[in-house]
Amino acid sequence: GKDYRIATIPGDGIGVDVTVEACKVLDRAAALHGFGLKWTEFDWSCERFTETGAMMPEDGVAQLSAFDGIFLGAVGFPGVADHVSLWGLLIPLRRAFAQYVNLRPVRLLPGTTSALAGRSADELEMVIVRENSEGEYSELGGRHNKGQPGEFVLQESVFTRVGVERIIRYAFELARTRVGRVCSATKSNGLIHSMPYWDEIFAEISAEYPDVHSEQCHVDALAARMVQQPERLDVVVASNLFGDILSDLAAAVTGGLGMAPSGNINPPGEYPSMFEAVHGSAPDIAGQGIANPVAQVLAGAMMLEHLGETACAQAVRDAVEQVLAEGSVATPDLGGKSTTAELGDAVAAAL
Amino acid sequence: GKDYRIATIPGDGIGVDVTVEACKVLDRAAALHGFGLKWTEFDWSCERFTETGAMMPEDGVAQLSAFDGIFLGAVGFPGVADHVSLWGLLIPLRRAFAQYVNLRPVRLLPGTTSALAGRSADELEMVIVRENSEGEYSELGGRHNKGQPGEFVLQESVFTRVGVERIIRYAFELARTRVGRVCSATKSNGLIHSMPYWDEIFAEISAEYPDVHSEQCHVDALAARMVQQPERLDVVVASNLFGDILSDLAAAVTGGLGMAPSGNINPPGEYPSMFEAVHGSAPDIAGQGIANPVAQVLAGAMMLEHLGETACAQAVRDAVEQVLAEGSVATPDLGGKSTTAELGDAVAAAL
Ligand SMILES: CC(C)[C@H](C(=O)O)[C@@H](O)C(=O)O
Ligand SMILES: CC(C)[C@H](C(=O)O)[C@@H](O)C(=O)O
Repeated sequence: GKDYRIATIPGDGIGVDVTVEACKVLDRAAALHGFGLKWTEFDWSCERFTETGAMMPEDGVAQLSAFDGIFLGAVGFPGVADHVSLWGLLIPLRRAFAQYVNLRPVRLLPGTTSALAGRSADELEMVIVRENSEGEYSELGGRHNKGQPGEFVLQESVFTRVGVERIIRYAFELARTRVGRVCSATKSNGLIHSMPYWDEIFAEISAEYPDVHSEQCHVDALAARMVQQPERLDVVVASNLFGDILSDLAAAVTGGLGMAPSGNINPPGEYPSMFEAVHGSAPDIAGQGIANPVAQVLAGAMMLEHLGETACAQAVRDAVEQVLAEGSVATPDLGGKSTTAELGDAVAAAL
Repeated sequence: GKDYRIATIPGDGIGVDVTVEACKVLDRAAALHGFGLKWTEFDWSCERFTETGAMMPEDGVAQLSAFDGIFLGAVGFPGVADHVSLWGLLIPLRRAFAQYVNLRPVRLLPGTTSALAGRSADELEMVIVRENSEGEYSELGGRHNKGQPGEFVLQESVFTRVGVERIIRYAFELARTRVGRVCSATKSNGLIHSMPYWDEIFAEISAEYPDVHSEQCHVDALAARMVQQPERLDVVVASNLFGDILSDLAAAVTGGLGMAPSGNINPPGEYPSMFEAVHGSAPDIAGQGIANPVAQVLAGAMMLEHLGETACAQAVRDAVEQVLAEGSVATPDLGGKSTTAELGDAVAAAL
C-alpha cells in the first residue's frame, strides 16, 4: 500500500506524552487498512529554544514542506515566554503553509458527561471553523512613550477581504455537508471597524448559499448560547481570536479539552496541513502519564481523513468510542485511574 | 430624608419594559428607607435616532453630568446599526464620565438552576471587573484599498498605562473585601503587544498586594474554566472585550442573562456612575410583557449601594431572592408564566 510521509513534532509537556500514544494507534490503524505512515520526528520545542535560542531551525518551514502532513503535540513551557514559543513555531507554521482554516469539531462522546445539565449527545455536536492566518493575531503594534506617564500600547488587528472571504466560504461549503446551518460570531457593536467588515462579507457570501441557513450572533451572546442553547448551533465561523475562545468553550461544554482535536488546514492542498489537540502542553501534569491522549488520537483521525483515508479515520474514531463507552480504561480527567499509555493501548487494541 | 437625582434612560426594546418595573421597586424601597429618588426621564433611543439622526442631543453628556446616578435600560433596535446606537449613547457615556470600571457580579440565586450540572450556589458566585474605557473598543482603524482585490481593514486596540493600572488596582482592592483572590484574563500568547503589557502591569500591581492570591489565565482556558471549574474563580479582571465575553458567559453559567446586573462605575465619584442590566434590548421579545426585570432591579440595587444606601440595596436584593425562592411568580425564562409587571409587583410587595 501507499506510504504517507508525516512530520511529527511532539513539542513540550504533555504534547510528548500524548503524541507517542497517538502515533501508536495511527500506525496500527494504517497497517490494518493496508497503508503506511512514515514518521519523521522533529525535536522542535522549548527545550530546543533554551539550548539554541530558536524553537526551530531557520529552514524549518522548508524542511516540512515536502511532507504529506504534520502531526503536532503542543508547544509551551514555563520559563519560555508564550509569545516566543508559539510565535516561534505554531503561528509561523500555520501561516507559512496557508493553513487558513482551523477546524475544531466537538461532540459529546459516549461514556463521557457534559458539564451542562441534562444535555444529550445529539444536542452537543458542532464544529468551530476558526480563521487561522490573520485577524487579531497580528505582529503590528508596539509600545509608545515607554517609561512616561502617557505610556500606551497599540495592538492592530488585520482583516483582509481574501482572508475573510475564504474562511466564510469554507464554512458554508462545510455546512452543506452537514445540517445546512452557519452561525457567524461577530462583535460589530464593540469593534466598529473589523467586525462590520466581517459581517458585510458574511452577508455577501451567505447570499451565494440560499440553501444554507445563516445567522450571526455577537460573541458575548454566543458564548452564553453555547452554555444555554448549544443544540441550536452547528457550524460556527469565527475570527482567529473568537474562534480560539469559542472552541475551548465548546470543548468544555462537551467532553472537555482532553477530547477536542483540531486541524490546521490548507484547503487547496498546496501545502501540508497540521493536526494537533486543542489543549496546550499542560506543564503541570507533563511526564506523569496521566494526560488524556484522546484529543491527539482524534487529531490523528482528522489527519487520516484529510489524507483521504476515510475508512481508517472512521475506524480510529470507532475504536475511541468503543473504549470510552466500555469505560474500564479511563484517565483521571475522565474519572478513571488509567495511564496515558493504557488508554492508548486500549484504543489500539480496539481497532 | 435625602433626595437623589437619577437620570433614567429606558432606551429601546425590553430596556423600556424592565426599567419601569425596576423604578417601581426602587421607589418603594427608597420610601421604606426614608429617602427619595427623583427621576428625570430621557427618551434617548433608536426611535429618537430615527426621528432626529442622533441617539442623544449634542449636549447630552452635559445634561446628565449633575445627576447622582444614571439608570439605563438598553439601547439597540433592528434597522439602526449597532455601532450607531451603541457608539451614539452607551460607549460615549461610559467614556465621558470616566466610568472605567464595569462591575458585573454574578451568582446563582435561590429558585433558579444553573445550566451546569451539579453545581451549588456557593460554587457559582463571582464578579467580573471589566475595563470599560479603552482596550479593544477603539475608534482607530479603517478600510484600505476599498474595492480592490487587496482590500483590508485595520482595527486598533489601545491599552494605556493609566487605564490598565487603575482597573487592575480596583480589582485587587475589591478582592480584599471578598475572598482575596484575583484572576486576570490574558491572551499574551496570541495578542503579543497588548496582552504582555497587561500581564506586566498585572504582575507589578499584584506585588503591591501580597495578601491577595493572584493568577492569570488565557481567556480561552478561562472560558473553559468557567464551565468546568467555576468554584475556583472569584474576582476576574479583564479587558473591555474579554470582560464583555466572560461576563455574558458567567451570567449564563449562573442564573442566565435575565439575572445579571452591571455597574459602569467612576470610582472617584467625580462623575455620575451608570447602572444597567448585562442583557441587551432583545427586540424579539420587546413589548410583550415577558422580559425578566430581575437584572434591572439588581442593577438598581447596585446603584443604591453606590449611593451609600447599603441597607436599602440589601433590602432590594433580599426581596428579589424571596420572590425567586418562593417561585410562584416567575417569567418564562425562569420557567413560569408571569409577566414582567407581575414579577416587578411581587418584588415590590416583598420589600
Ligand atoms: C452592546 C455592547 C456594545 C455592549 C458592550 O459590549 O459593551 C454590551 O454587550 C455590554 O456588555 O454592555
Ligand atoms: C497557544 C495559542 C497561541 C493557540 C492559539 O490561540 O491559537 C492555542 O490556544 C490554540 O487554540 O491553538
